[in-house]
Amino acid sequence: MDKKWGLQNSSGPYRVKQCQQLFQCWCEVLTLTTGTAANSIAMTLACPPYGSILCHEHSHMNADECGAPEFFTAGAKLIPMPGEHGKIDLDYLDQYLAGTGVHGEHESLPSIISITQCTEAGTLYSLKELKQLKAIKQKYNLALHMDGARFANALVSLDCPAAEMTWRSGVDLLSFGATKNGAMMAEALIVFNPQLTNQIKRLRKRSGHLISKMRFISAQLKAYLEGDLWLNLAQHANLMAATFKQQATHNIEYIHPVEANEVFCRLPIELIEQLKALGFEFHIWPGHNDVIRLVFSHATEDSQIDLLTQAINKYQPCE
Amino acid sequence: MDKKWGLQNSSGPYRVKQCQQLFQCWCEVLTLTTGTAANSIAMTLACPPYGSILCHEHSHMNADECGAPEFFTAGAKLIPMPGEHGKIDLDYLDQYLAGTGVHGEHESLPSIISITQCTEAGTLYSLKELKQLKAIKQKYNLALHMDGARFANALVSLDCPAAEMTWRSGVDLLSFGATKNGAMMAEALIVFNPQLTNQIKRLRKRSGHLISKMRFISAQLKAYLEGDLWLNLAQHANLMAATFKQQATHNIEYIHPVEANEVFCRLPIELIEQLKALGFEFHIWPGHNDVIRLVFSHATEDSQIDLLTQAINKYQPCE
Amino acid sequence: MDKKWGLQNSSGPYRVKQCQQLFQCWCEVLTLTTGTAANSIAMTLACPPYGSILCHEHSHMNADECGAPEFFTAGAKLIPMPGEHGKIDLDYLDQYLAGTGVHGEHESLPSIISITQCTEAGTLYSLKELKQLKAIKQKYNLALHMDGARFANALVSLDCPAAEMTWRSGVDLLSFGATKNGAMMAEALIVFNPQLTNQIKRLRKRSGHLISKMRFISAQLKAYLEGDLWLNLAQHANLMAATFKQQATHNIEYIHPVEANEVFCRLPIELIEQLKALGFEFHIWPGHNDVIRLVFSHATEDSQIDLLTQAINKYQPCE
Amino acid sequence: MDKKWGLQNSSGPYRVKQCQQLFQCWCEVLTLTTGTAANSIAMTLACPPYGSILCHEHSHMNADECGAPEFFTAGAKLIPMPGEHGKIDLDYLDQYLAGTGVHGEHESLPSIISITQCTEAGTLYSLKELKQLKAIKQKYNLALHMDGARFANALVSLDCPAAEMTWRSGVDLLSFGATKNGAMMAEALIVFNPQLTNQIKRLRKRSGHLISKMRFISAQLKAYLEGDLWLNLAQHANLMAATFKQQATHNIEYIHPVEANEVFCRLPIELIEQLKALGFEFHIWPGHNDVIRLVFSHATEDSQIDLLTQAINKYQPCE
Repeated sequence: MDKKWGLQNSSGPYRVKQCQQLFQCWCEVLTLTTGTAANSIAMTLACPPYGSILCHEHSHMNADECGAPEFFTAGAKLIPMPGEHGKIDLDYLDQYLAGTGVHGEHESLPSIISITQCTEAGTLYSLKELKQLKAIKQKYNLALHMDGARFANALVSLDCPAAEMTWRSGVDLLSFGATKNGAMMAEALIVFNPQLTNQIKRLRKRSGHLISKMRFISAQLKAYLEGDLWLNLAQHANLMAATFKQQATHNIEYIHPVEANEVFCRLPIELIEQLKALGFEFHIWPGHNDVIRLVFSHATEDSQIDLLTQAINKYQPCE
Repeated sequence: MDKKWGLQNSSGPYRVKQCQQLFQCWCEVLTLTTGTAANSIAMTLACPPYGSILCHEHSHMNADECGAPEFFTAGAKLIPMPGEHGKIDLDYLDQYLAGTGVHGEHESLPSIISITQCTEAGTLYSLKELKQLKAIKQKYNLALHMDGARFANALVSLDCPAAEMTWRSGVDLLSFGATKNGAMMAEALIVFNPQLTNQIKRLRKRSGHLISKMRFISAQLKAYLEGDLWLNLAQHANLMAATFKQQATHNIEYIHPVEANEVFCRLPIELIEQLKALGFEFHIWPGHNDVIRLVFSHATEDSQIDLLTQAINKYQPCE
Repeated sequence: MDKKWGLQNSSGPYRVKQCQQLFQCWCEVLTLTTGTAANSIAMTLACPPYGSILCHEHSHMNADECGAPEFFTAGAKLIPMPGEHGKIDLDYLDQYLAGTGVHGEHESLPSIISITQCTEAGTLYSLKELKQLKAIKQKYNLALHMDGARFANALVSLDCPAAEMTWRSGVDLLSFGATKNGAMMAEALIVFNPQLTNQIKRLRKRSGHLISKMRFISAQLKAYLEGDLWLNLAQHANLMAATFKQQATHNIEYIHPVEANEVFCRLPIELIEQLKALGFEFHIWPGHNDVIRLVFSHATEDSQIDLLTQAINKYQPCE
Repeated sequence: MDKKWGLQNSSGPYRVKQCQQLFQCWCEVLTLTTGTAANSIAMTLACPPYGSILCHEHSHMNADECGAPEFFTAGAKLIPMPGEHGKIDLDYLDQYLAGTGVHGEHESLPSIISITQCTEAGTLYSLKELKQLKAIKQKYNLALHMDGARFANALVSLDCPAAEMTWRSGVDLLSFGATKNGAMMAEALIVFNPQLTNQIKRLRKRSGHLISKMRFISAQLKAYLEGDLWLNLAQHANLMAATFKQQATHNIEYIHPVEANEVFCRLPIELIEQLKALGFEFHIWPGHNDVIRLVFSHATEDSQIDLLTQAINKYQPCE
């Protein structure tokens, strides 16, 4: 006698069809509520417990998920990779992989590369860099995962088809995020490689991620993807970041290229205090008390940018 | 620049205060989206990997969570207990526990008893039975968990204070469900034993269950608990089940006592087909093609009961 | 400059050749030091974390390994099966499996049957029963594992080729024990199914079971298998058990059929005390203070049997 | 009727007494067969699944155990630390720890520092460096583990009491290795901190590391520790390394200080080939085809050193 509210349950044909149209290919779609769940189930699909995961040292998976990938994979090893502006140094990656395989069973088996697009530094792998990654992946017979918590922001910034930034660049598994771009809690794990979909629903269930009324997640994704809403939201957020960068020209040092909707910048500590006092919300970057992260969203308004940039530009350090 | 919609994030003081008032005691509250997550994190708090969990053989944890408790605890052993009508046979439990401890380290360490209230059979442990459980728990120095996916239905049926059915009966950990009683996706793990709260937030995060916009879960719980909404919803659901039982008197055999909002009954297979054809939704019980489960909800209407019971009572088997 | 003592390291061609000759087929051999490790790695090869393992409720894996199978498989669920004299009730097993598959992803995926040969009750699956098991395994597309901690005792008792009791009866994975039959610490996991050997060495290494000087384990297995030593040892042990049963005729009730080298029997408690006082070593069966297990070994001597049976037969209960 | 060969089972009072005399303090002793098992169980005792382990990037645990620590701990994160000559850079460690704690539950909880003594580079932490480590450990409230696979070699080199190099320097957990110094397979996990011994035997059993005839491991340790045999063996091995270094003066570059029984050196590739052809056994260091590791053992003889050093010194590169 459960009453349904007129929406289909997830993993249903509608959601899959929507995604297949978006990516112009076959794909499997697993609806979820968090990006950590999407990333971790992705790892489980492609990395055995004795395997290793190659990811940027500052990636969310390595630095901010409290060991979730290790937990879900039952002990896979994350190998942190260096690289500027949040992107894995591809030469380093290639060299690292070339050196593996000599210790036999003593060594975790390199199994998957995970990149973040946009990265933790708000930057993007260009399509050219993605092709290089695809070549490395193929050279060493690895899977490739993209953490797309800010997928929409990356896509509108690169201004290319979704297919181009994903499976045509060798991506097997995509954590597709909607929450950061406006949804309440709606994420999806999208699998382009049919060999990596085995028992994907059981992996969701056993980790407690099967929502009984999945229709409430599906409804979010349905609306998000229809009529380019998601792209319009991301476009606006990116534009706000670009506008900020254009306007905030004094007292500010930009730490990373601004390529999507995040800005990392160094400001005088006193100015940071002033901004907080004015009610602006942002994240002071761990380990650097003079560096902040500004995230611009679909809901950011021009007037907010104006207020913020004025506050920054007009700041006068007291001697 | 993230915009907040006026609701506090979860685990915040408001939610905890609401729960402490409800249970009239100190407690820790961890907001979640699924009952499986609540159950599994509860197990992790009280059962080491080398421990065992004593639960009914048909409990959700043992039969319907695809190994989630084993996964979260890194390998604890579930010991399935027999018992009529979904309730653990308490003499069997006592005897089982009395026989443990002779194999030393070869044997998993009995660590926690988990009961379900209401049970998978729609029945209830009486307060007297709960006191017996408390005595067993204390005798063997175990923790006690209550899977309260249908907590509200149980509480209004027993018609006692929430404290009485929980910590005063020895319950250390409660999976408090709201989803089955009207919420979209809102559950909470409530811990009454302060010694079992260590790093509870990290346990949520590492399993991917930290929702970034937790306010959307909190908002559900806030409304659910305010003004006795939750109790009223459950009261109605229970009443619908009782009404059904009173009215459906022909062609039906009741398998378990009807004590809350679920009815398990045996019907002629042909009648089951007719009910399906009429648009009624229910679950045919695995392994028994003539047994169905009817779940009555806050949204069930009297007129639906009338239609359903008429269809059952008037059925005439064709020879 | 490490000095080697003239023995090859394990997993080397000699050990594999010895086993392939013994079993008259292709097989993979992983040398280990404990049966628990062999059983657990076997489970990992054939059972995913969301899978289930069907085994006897009193099997070593279920009752005496402190959750090792759950640990190694990262959370697979053991489903305890009933059955007389330590053997799984095959009708029950068939019926159980027939009832699975209706809950979808909520249910652990039945993946492997594990039997013990000789069983925990000292009994044997006959070749006919093994063929029945093979049929069930094939019907439900499962793997079949044999815990052969007492493999030699079973083999000489059934008096059949090793191939007949294993892969010709559908066994995919065999825990081959030598320790209980005379070795210091030498076990092997033997895999007959080439699809279940993936990264078997990494599974050994990551669980800490790669002995650096494996030659000391290999040396034991080499000697054990050469010239039928292992069969002769088992033959003697079985004979001692049979002799005991023939001779001990008073004051004794045999609980299980005596089919190999173990005897389970009920004795007057006072007599049990007398036997202990005389220096006999045995195991009082958990939960039954008047039931003991006698294990006869390669080293048991006729004169010991005589002393023991005399003590039993001549016992006079004091009124 | 199992026959015992006159040796007590391990974890028995004799072994514990031997170790307590050696270390002049209370300690718990868990006998094992591999160093990986000792390390991994040590981690489980002190690091929760949501915790992190701070170890040298080239440590055995991080580089050569195929994810064993992640497996045993159910997903703890290893944080690789840089540092010259195989030793953790203590300033880096301190700074790293100072930066943790800002991400809350998103971040794995720093729980234990693990050092190797002798290190993977054959070098030693001096007593002064160990005191610095103790200070860091106390400052951040962490546990301290020492991987002592070559403990004896380190001890005779530092020429101090065993207590001084361990618990007096803050070591809570010690992997005490005998295998590399002459035993067949005999290791022990020694716990100096009584708060880190909970259910240590169950941790051994569930990982398959309880040897049923443990007396054969115990016998090795008994003999090893009696009459300073272990120290004499290590003394000889260290002396051989020192002798080699003194004698091999041409065509060789020493990569790391020679402080115990290992020598890492760069040689002409052609010379490396010649040495192999002469029957010398050594390890070519991964990633460096002109760097070899020479391990000198208790069984190395002076005449072997002479032959080896002559071969090196007299080498003439062909133009």
